Amino acid sequence: MSVETQEEKPEIMEPLHRVGITNLRTVARINWKGRVYTFLPLFEVTIDVPAEKKGIHMSRLVESITEAMSEAVEEEVMGAHRSLEELGRAVIRRLEGKHPHRHAEVWIRTHLIVPRETPASGKVSYEPYDVEVGVIKNGDGSFEKVLHVKVTGNTVCPHAMANNDGKTHIQRAVGELEVRTAFDEEIALEDMIDVVEGSFSHPTYTLLKTVDENAVVQGMFANPKFVEDVAREILAKAKERFNGRIHVRVISNESIHKHDVIAETWS
Amino acid sequence: MSVETQEEKPEIMEPLHRVGITNLRTVARINWKGRVYTFLPLFEVTIDVPAEKKGIHMSRLVESITEAMSEAVEEEVMGAHRSLEELGRAVIRRLEGKHPHRHAEVWIRTHLIVPRETPASGKVSYEPYDVEVGVIKNGDGSFEKVLHVKVTGNTVCPHAMANNDGKTHIQRAVGELEVRTAFDEEIALEDMIDVVEGSFSHPTYTLLKTVDENAVVQGMFANPKFVEDVAREILAKAKERFNGRIHVRVISNESIHKHDVIAETWS
Amino acid sequence: MSVETQEEKPEIMEPLHRVGITNLRTVARINWKGRVYTFLPLFEVTIDVPAEKKGIHMSRLVESITEAMSEAVEEEVMGAHRSLEELGRAVIRRLEGKHPHRHAEVWIRTHLIVPRETPASGKVSYEPYDVEVGVIKNGDGSFEKVLHVKVTGNTVCPHAMANNDGKTHIQRAVGELEVRTAFDEEIALEDMIDVVEGSFSHPTYTLLKTVDENAVVQGMFANPKFVEDVAREILAKAKERFNGRIHVRVISNESIHKHDVIAETWS
Amino acid sequence: MSVETQEEKPEIMEPLHRVGITNLRTVARINWKGRVYTFLPLFEVTIDVPAEKKGIHMSRLVESITEAMSEAVEEEVMGAHRSLEELGRAVIRRLEGKHPHRHAEVWIRTHLIVPRETPASGKVSYEPYDVEVGVIKNGDGSFEKVLHVKVTGNTVCPHAMANNDGKTHIQRAVGELEVRTAFDEEIALEDMIDVVEGSFSHPTYTLLKTVDENAVVQGMFANPKFVEDVAREILAKAKERFNGRIHVRVISNESIHKHDVIAETWS
Repeated sequence: MSVETQEEKPEIMEPLHRVGITNLRTVARINWKGRVYTFLPLFEVTIDVPAEKKGIHMSRLVESITEAMSEAVEEEVMGAHRSLEELGRAVIRRLEGKHPHRHAEVWIRTHLIVPRETPASGKVSYEPYDVEVGVIKNGDGSFEKVLHVKVTGNTVCPHAMANNDGKTHIQRAVGELEVRTAFDEEIALEDMIDVVEGSFSHPTYTLLKTVDENAVVQGMFANPKFVEDVAREILAKAKERFNGRIHVRVISNESIHKHDVIAETWS
Repeated sequence: MSVETQEEKPEIMEPLHRVGITNLRTVARINWKGRVYTFLPLFEVTIDVPAEKKGIHMSRLVESITEAMSEAVEEEVMGAHRSLEELGRAVIRRLEGKHPHRHAEVWIRTHLIVPRETPASGKVSYEPYDVEVGVIKNGDGSFEKVLHVKVTGNTVCPHAMANNDGKTHIQRAVGELEVRTAFDEEIALEDMIDVVEGSFSHPTYTLLKTVDENAVVQGMFANPKFVEDVAREILAKAKERFNGRIHVRVISNESIHKHDVIAETWS
Repeated sequence: MSVETQEEKPEIMEPLHRVGITNLRTVARINWKGRVYTFLPLFEVTIDVPAEKKGIHMSRLVESITEAMSEAVEEEVMGAHRSLEELGRAVIRRLEGKHPHRHAEVWIRTHLIVPRETPASGKVSYEPYDVEVGVIKNGDGSFEKVLHVKVTGNTVCPHAMANNDGKTHIQRAVGELEVRTAFDEEIALEDMIDVVEGSFSHPTYTLLKTVDENAVVQGMFANPKFVEDVAREILAKAKERFNGRIHVRVISNESIHKHDVIAETWS
Repeated sequence: MSVETQEEKPEIMEPLHRVGITNLRTVARINWKGRVYTFLPLFEVTIDVPAEKKGIHMSRLVESITEAMSEAVEEEVMGAHRSLEELGRAVIRRLEGKHPHRHAEVWIRTHLIVPRETPASGKVSYEPYDVEVGVIKNGDGSFEKVLHVKVTGNTVCPHAMANNDGKTHIQRAVGELEVRTAFDEEIALEDMIDVVEGSFSHPTYTLLKTVDENAVVQGMFANPKFVEDVAREILAKAKERFNGRIHVRVISNESIHKHDVIAETWS
């Protein structure tokens, strides 16, 4: 019979907040509003460890992911989890039967590809976004979630524009919006992406024919913004649309500098 | 005369917590206990922005860095700042005369190379560490600092060892220790590094002759540790030696898995 | 009517070898042996530019990707491209009707998740691999492909083992195998992964119950290998199984050092 | 006495081209034209391994770096190596006495900080660049070197400008220039940086007062360039100024897209 070193008393008896597996790449399928999406996400799954237990049984965390996946697969498309947070909660539910704990977290990081229509030619353009979903089970059994989106856009400097007869510097910028809220709050990642994407000087597109490029250029010059303006607009819109604690960060990859500029704020 | 768009009233009047420059690479010299060290750090400098100001004057943040540097250079070696946090505070002091703000932060990230003695042959081995120092000026004018070190070590699985007659799996692990404390607390980054490095199954070395390699191997097998054990030892030692809020994270790059395991805790 | 600056004569008349789009993230579906896999790959698509043309029409490269995708989607599952290289060639075929060029390249980088059986308990474990496929159309119209896999495994030091009565140091290692060959050579990425994974001291698994962990530990000690041994075994097996130019690189994240060791070779 | 497993005959007798240490961070001092610069570079040092030797003695490569450093330190400032390539060759010279080989390579990667004058206010601005130097000893004993610089600049789209009455999109771009040449060719990294930096729509600066920002903006609009134009200008200037094989790569982080565009060429 095998020794269970994890169950021994540790030399140093300190409780640990988050112990588990991280950077685990796997495949996941989500049935989002009737359509099945496949992701290749990175998972982190952690639980707390009381002072008197030496360690955790890591393989049970991996099994919880695998079983939560295959439960969905077995029941086919209709059985796929309805969102990344549903999948996260399913992992924790599986874990409850496998490993004692008080606090548990599942973090899922993936890319999301969303079809958009280009501004002038009306063609379809597939836009990529980085998203992360965290599901947190607190010590009292309540569930929270953290939704995070990262969107590529741009800033057009209003200060340079005012000082150069309409000429200015323009650059790529990246906006991040995070909402931490109760598990049952209905917040779509797509809506969070819309909030960020609509707060830049102009949205960006993967496909742009010349007429579209012209529309984007004209739109950018009509809407000059500091990184500060982008952060404020994301915050204001997010507070209006989403319940929860909101965190905003915008980084602009300045075209006139080698460094970046940053604006960060939270509710 | 130039327009100062930054001073205008923004359309959306939200206060911003952190606005500034980031990922700025430059050169810095520190006179640490009478010896001058040169770094090539990354800087982030941010200030808060009140609701009624559209933006900040980014160039004044850059000037604060440059002037804090050259003030030291002008006065030559003896005038170099005595630590990364002294340099950080000097940047904020410069900034006070240049740009109104209530809250300010300077973050400096660099590599630190420390000479060590190898365990058996007694040769000198130069060991690299990643360090980050944050200096925070709060709204009441008080200064805090955040000291962060990242150290490469290893874990040796005690569970596998107990189940395989002394055979086990071993792997590289990375431990991080962060202390947030009052500015005037005397805490050396080297001491924080020692705490982390001494908590692994064994310290690692850049140079190891065969006799040294043997000493490390023997030492590792004599001291098997879960990632949980490493985190607890860092936390316990850090609480004993350093005043402040302590955060510990250890990630082990498992040699039997493609993913990592993690243990995280804080005081 | 819009100006086509790209068609103008450039000031400096030098031919360019590779011009196009890179780091484009999108979604792709492959029908590999009757089963449909979804990927979220990064694309790079480039063509050559003659000395007398100022630039290329970038949007036509994006359209070639999008159309090659939807051609497959329209014809549903059975119409999905049968491999990543078929998809790459379909992009170039689309491009031929859109943009004059002599040389064209498509590079597709993605994760591949493959089910494996654990060594003792016989459970299913889903293993992630990084793969890249390049399709190259040469000036004479011939097609080549470059297949690249990156696999996580481990090394067990035979030198330390010989000097420490069977004790040694063990660590995660990463092996890469690349084959450059004619487009029509039948080489499965899975077979290339097998070659690399089977050349370490032992394969790694995402899920390992205690009996499996024991099997891996025993297996590792029974098969000590330098990074040099791993590289040689990959090269020898690859030369036997695959026609083409072979490149091998193995990096071992030493558990006794802070740096890595490397072995690289090619046919 | 210890066993030297490295000297044994391997099971698979294949020669290996490049075996050694990589990602080794350390400190280095260079006396460049009478002024001492300190770097915190990453080193890779490799040698070839004949078919009949199982492995190499990795610690001798580390010692070669350490000794080449301290030889310079011992002789104080004036004794510091006169360039990164001199340091690289000194490492190989040390290695010659320590470990048999036919082919050897040393790669040194670091940041270089260069003072510049801003375009209008004439202030000093410290600009960071990524550089890499490779020193290669071939089987016939001859030495070659590879010099690589990476410079941050910008592109201003001439096509959008022509179609939008002078309005356009602008973005950060990164240009890389590599020269492979005989060891004794006199080529300064600073001159290579000048070639790249001067080929963008405009150079970038860490510090820019409003008058400087205006000069950069006016300069960018006066000099619109595709990524293709930047690559051509770098190539043409580099061919004129430097003897050797030249490779150029420019990547533009488009402000209207989420992906990048690339132009690559070589002599």
